[in-house]
Amino acid sequence: MPPPPPAWVQALKPAGPQGSELLEQERAQSNVNVDKLSELLHTKEALETQDRLVRILSSEPIFDKSENHTSGRTERIQRALARGKRLQQLREQLHWSEQEYIMANDLIGEPTPYGLHASMFLVTLREQSTPEQKKLFLEPAEKYQIIGCYAQTELGHGSNVRGLETRATWNPDDKTFTIHSPTLTASKWWIGSLGRNANHAVVMAQLYVGGKNYGPHPFVVQIRDLQTHQPLENIYVGDIGPKFGYNTMDNGFLLFNHVKIPHVNMLARFSRIDKDTNKYMRPASPSLVYGTMTWVRSNIVLDAGGVLARGVTIATRYCAVRRQFQDRDATGNVGENQVLNYKMVQIRLLPLLASMYALHFTGRGMMRLYEENQSRMKASAASDQDTRGPGPEQLRAGADLLADLHATSCGLKALASTTAGEGLEVCRRACGGHGYSSFSGIGPWYADYLPTLTWEGDNYMLTQQVARYLLKSARAVLEGKGTANDTSQILQAYLARREKGASFDILEKDSDIVAAFAWRTAHLTFEALKLRDVEKRSWNSLLVDFWRLSTAHSQYLVVKNFYEAVTSEQMSAALDAETRTLMYKLFRLYALHTMEREGAEFFASSAVTTRQLRLTQNNAVMKLLDEIRPHAVRLVDAWKIPDWKLDSSLGRYDGEVYPDLFRRASMNPVNDLVFDPYPWNDAVLKNGPKSKL
Amino acid sequence: MPPPPPAWVQALKPAGPQGSELLEQERAQSNVNVDKLSELLHTKEALETQDRLVRILSSEPIFDKSENHTSGRTERIQRALARGKRLQQLREQLHWSEQEYIMANDLIGEPTPYGLHASMFLVTLREQSTPEQKKLFLEPAEKYQIIGCYAQTELGHGSNVRGLETRATWNPDDKTFTIHSPTLTASKWWIGSLGRNANHAVVMAQLYVGGKNYGPHPFVVQIRDLQTHQPLENIYVGDIGPKFGYNTMDNGFLLFNHVKIPHVNMLARFSRIDKDTNKYMRPASPSLVYGTMTWVRSNIVLDAGGVLARGVTIATRYCAVRRQFQDRDATGNVGENQVLNYKMVQIRLLPLLASMYALHFTGRGMMRLYEENQSRMKASAASDQDTRGPGPEQLRAGADLLADLHATSCGLKALASTTAGEGLEVCRRACGGHGYSSFSGIGPWYADYLPTLTWEGDNYMLTQQVARYLLKSARAVLEGKGTANDTSQILQAYLARREKGASFDILEKDSDIVAAFAWRTAHLTFEALKLRDVEKRSWNSLLVDFWRLSTAHSQYLVVKNFYEAVTSEQMSAALDAETRTLMYKLFRLYALHTMEREGAEFFASSAVTTRQLRLTQNNAVMKLLDEIRPHAVRLVDAWKIPDWKLDSSLGRYDGEVYPDLFRRASMNPVNDLVFDPYPWNDAVLKNGPKSKL
Repeated sequence: MPPPPPAWVQALKPAGPQGSELLEQERAQSNVNVDKLSELLHTKEALETQDRLVRILSSEPIFDKSENHTSGRTERIQRALARGKRLQQLREQLHWSEQEYIMANDLIGEPTPYGLHASMFLVTLREQSTPEQKKLFLEPAEKYQIIGCYAQTELGHGSNVRGLETRATWNPDDKTFTIHSPTLTASKWWIGSLGRNANHAVVMAQLYVGGKNYGPHPFVVQIRDLQTHQPLENIYVGDIGPKFGYNTMDNGFLLFNHVKIPHVNMLARFSRIDKDTNKYMRPASPSLVYGTMTWVRSNIVLDAGGVLARGVTIATRYCAVRRQFQDRDATGNVGENQVLNYKMVQIRLLPLLASMYALHFTGRGMMRLYEENQSRMKASAASDQDTRGPGPEQLRAGADLLADLHATSCGLKALASTTAGEGLEVCRRACGGHGYSSFSGIGPWYADYLPTLTWEGDNYMLTQQVARYLLKSARAVLEGKGTANDTSQILQAYLARREKGASFDILEKDSDIVAAFAWRTAHLTFEALKLRDVEKRSWNSLLVDFWRLSTAHSQYLVVKNFYEAVTSEQMSAALDAETRTLMYKLFRLYALHTMEREGAEFFASSAVTTRQLRLTQNNAVMKLLDEIRPHAVRLVDAWKIPDWKLDSSLGRYDGEVYPDLFRRASMNPVNDLVFDPYPWNDAVLKNGPKSKL
Repeated sequence: MPPPPPAWVQALKPAGPQGSELLEQERAQSNVNVDKLSELLHTKEALETQDRLVRILSSEPIFDKSENHTSGRTERIQRALARGKRLQQLREQLHWSEQEYIMANDLIGEPTPYGLHASMFLVTLREQSTPEQKKLFLEPAEKYQIIGCYAQTELGHGSNVRGLETRATWNPDDKTFTIHSPTLTASKWWIGSLGRNANHAVVMAQLYVGGKNYGPHPFVVQIRDLQTHQPLENIYVGDIGPKFGYNTMDNGFLLFNHVKIPHVNMLARFSRIDKDTNKYMRPASPSLVYGTMTWVRSNIVLDAGGVLARGVTIATRYCAVRRQFQDRDATGNVGENQVLNYKMVQIRLLPLLASMYALHFTGRGMMRLYEENQSRMKASAASDQDTRGPGPEQLRAGADLLADLHATSCGLKALASTTAGEGLEVCRRACGGHGYSSFSGIGPWYADYLPTLTWEGDNYMLTQQVARYLLKSARAVLEGKGTANDTSQILQAYLARREKGASFDILEKDSDIVAAFAWRTAHLTFEALKLRDVEKRSWNSLLVDFWRLSTAHSQYLVVKNFYEAVTSEQMSAALDAETRTLMYKLFRLYALHTMEREGAEFFASSAVTTRQLRLTQNNAVMKLLDEIRPHAVRLVDAWKIPDWKLDSSLGRYDGEVYPDLFRRASMNPVNDLVFDPYPWNDAVLKNGPKSKL
């Protein structure tokens, strides 16, 4: 580490006012009840757990973050493995719950090579194993005696799961499966925890029985020796190399050369091969698997609020500390203006501040719906084993809710992760030049988050699922077969009023804002339906319309969920009137700013008039920015992201931005190098060896 | 390096059709004359130089790119210095011109620590030195006997140059200046080549003479010893640490503790201290300095086309090789569809393909204007020394053109770099999961490019300069003082027709498309003028309107420049009719797609009707996508970016995407590590030492 700065440097202070003073002023000018609001967002228990875990983790040297951005990949991934090990040890010693373990992982701020073992490998074994298989695979996996991963994506196929090339062929003679990669593109690819860490994999492979393909199924395959950790014979496995982010994870590749596995290694809860007849037995309940995907996507929606909150917290605090230029209309020497006072900064940051709340409440709403549905399904499965069984109406309502939930989760996953990912980059740029420093804390986080826009369904691909569902719902409504679910309702409401036309008072009535979003969705749905069913346009030619439709629908869902949250009894009970008013304003800002950005669609669907749009843009949104501005710092404080997690000079709670940037810069290891700057000297360092020029 | 894969792996091929076959088909289905088009873009000479330089550079081991993405920062920056040295040696040995040296730097694909010496340090010395100072500083600098940088930005001040805190105080007694950093925020920051490499700096500091501040001026300060390369006394200097990209550059910080420099170290071509009277002598011609900024920004516009072309080349080729899903309306087994055939991919990539051409021709147009203006100014300066001097009309026309050029370059710099930066990320995502791999070649390039959106004027800040100029022009036009320049013309044309209203045939007449963009600019200008001058709205409350206005104006300029290029005699002479037709289509796609995205503004300004907008969206743009699609690969081929420069598995000219991804993955150094995967073993590697958990 470089020597500390000389005394005359250590005596220097930033030009005043100090960051700490500015943030104190910010906090003094708002009455937002930070503690109550944070408890509403996270619960008091979770916040206490967070404090406790930060104390534990920040006192362990292995979790020190100061070298995260300077090391090469081989060092980083070894340190990540060491961190993963330490987390496991702590988990056992301190008897952490699953929730605590997840939170601890989240706090250390980067993935570890155990990531996919702890999530998809265990989840798949839990959900798709028979009791015998649980004993064989799940129990040792839970004890980390075997380490696994979930190998679905291939070099040549990501989105199109049916196109996977890896094969599992049933051998009736010796009652085994042969796992084989017939081509190079069949190589498993991107598989987290596979590259260096796993010794087992759940492999999705096309099942062939008697020459017939039954589609992709899951198989447990051991890939490395449990002692030497060397790949087993006829298996070629490794890490796929450096990435834009996520470099502490060993995403891997995997090829099989006719590898035999026993019958018991096909995960058989839902489908299996009968050993005696050599016949394929059908899936029992694919809707449960469907449910897992919905759960994964709902979690992405819920997380998106918190992901964005990191960027918004950093940018908001820094823009309150950073001062640049005098206000152009100011007279006399009033000093430089806080950057957060500029409307061009507010219009970028404050709608994102509103979005992080909007996404959080939407994610909560999604999880609630998911859980309702799960308990309904369990009840139905239980009554299934009754003599009576569920009535046909119950079954229909269940399937209806599931389909709605599936489409909703697809659309919202796309919208939420795009909003969070792109929002982080907006936050980074709002920090000006210093946003580009790794010490801003935004760039590394953005780079690690970006895959979320592609995995669990590419955000563009997913929009087709939403459109397909909306078109199907619209056809049902037109045939008089509408249901009680929300989608059906908004389509019916639109049809009933279409002739008369919409007239929403979006500037005065909040419920009319929600109605205007619903109207636009319904309008776009019937427009798309006409193009597809009447004009017989090709599916491909409509993909752009479908993407717009899905975005519109998902924006409606966010606006609706946010509105329900701000008008809920829970919020009334939890917050004082002033804080609640601010929540209303954030709702309006999210909705009206979205409406303004998508103005052409709102206007074309007659959901709003051009006059309303102009007033929205010139008055309503600008006024909301003015009203929310004084509370911005407290509104990010309420998210209660610990400094240790943010790992950001710009976003420090105490506002001591410049001393922290300076401290980190002076300590960075490049400052240990003494260059030889002359081109004719081949050595790059003073007294260093000659380089191999 | 890991051992090569076993024989059974080496025998595997990707599932057919092979990437090479698909790209051959692509190239066979289009008649675009790639060679003629590339010569029009770059000139034949430049393409030959490029070929020659690639041969030279790719044969030197120091320029091997394979470890660029895996090494830590201290290794990377040392290698970058070694590369910089080798480039200098080659430049001397092979007698490269300035152009050849710049191209070679560009081909190696990452900045070196000599970057700011070779650009801003030398440029500033050339432009702002007296003959005596040239001998003293410029001559040794050109021979790399002294290495320098340009130190303007500070920790606390970037955009607001007048707010710089570093001071240079004139000492009349001993005829020296004292350079001093009174605060921590006065520390120079972000200065390229300063952190480890420079031994001199041009320091921008507030000049104080007799207690009076004369504003920021440039001073040459030696900062490190020429032999030991250690910082001189009372100077604290170092590297600012890791960044989102640009990590091979030693951006630095610099603090002074009352450092004395002689009189001759103030660069004195335009302003100086008279040694005898101790008086400040006024700047001679600030407009020349103004000119340098305009030149730098014009270059950013010109480069933006090529920056974007890298991403579009990679994504277009890969989307032609990648196949996923069958077309939903296809009957029977037709195999999977090339991703490039999907409209949702086309709508993302093809407008960017059009943009890269649009920006290139716009940059060319800017440089032409700049050069015209420079020669006019030189002529005027020459006649200045005549007895006659320039006439008042000449002077006014010159100042008028300069102001227009300045505003134009500000707005276009913002639009062009935002388009290129954000476009690269669109390209990366269009590549699906593999876009996230460093081997895609997009991510690292994007990360290195991003500072361009902030430096040389933050893209949001710059829009105020454009708006200020447009408002001033509009006031002049209203007062009957319009000039002959284009801005004045479009404002006058709008006023003349405003009562009658616009009626542009944007779907049939290309010149009307340009006119509609001009109309929108003029409309927004007069709207903004009304808000500012009549309604007396505050400057701050109008910043968002100004940003929209600047964007609109800059889009008009791009559309106009592109239109002038496609209708130019130069293009008629260079290209066959078919290729030229494609250029027209790219122009239309750029313009109509922009119009569609900004639909609300075009409609609100009455530049187009809602019917026209709908037809643009549903028919015109979709039809253009269909028509351009078959030529997409040839249109990126014409940019002639060598594979060695692209450094991308996905973007290879030969389409051998998957074997190359596989080869790079299997060779990556993480595959040399053998993990110990068990959490209770403290060692992270098999037989490795215990980690310090």
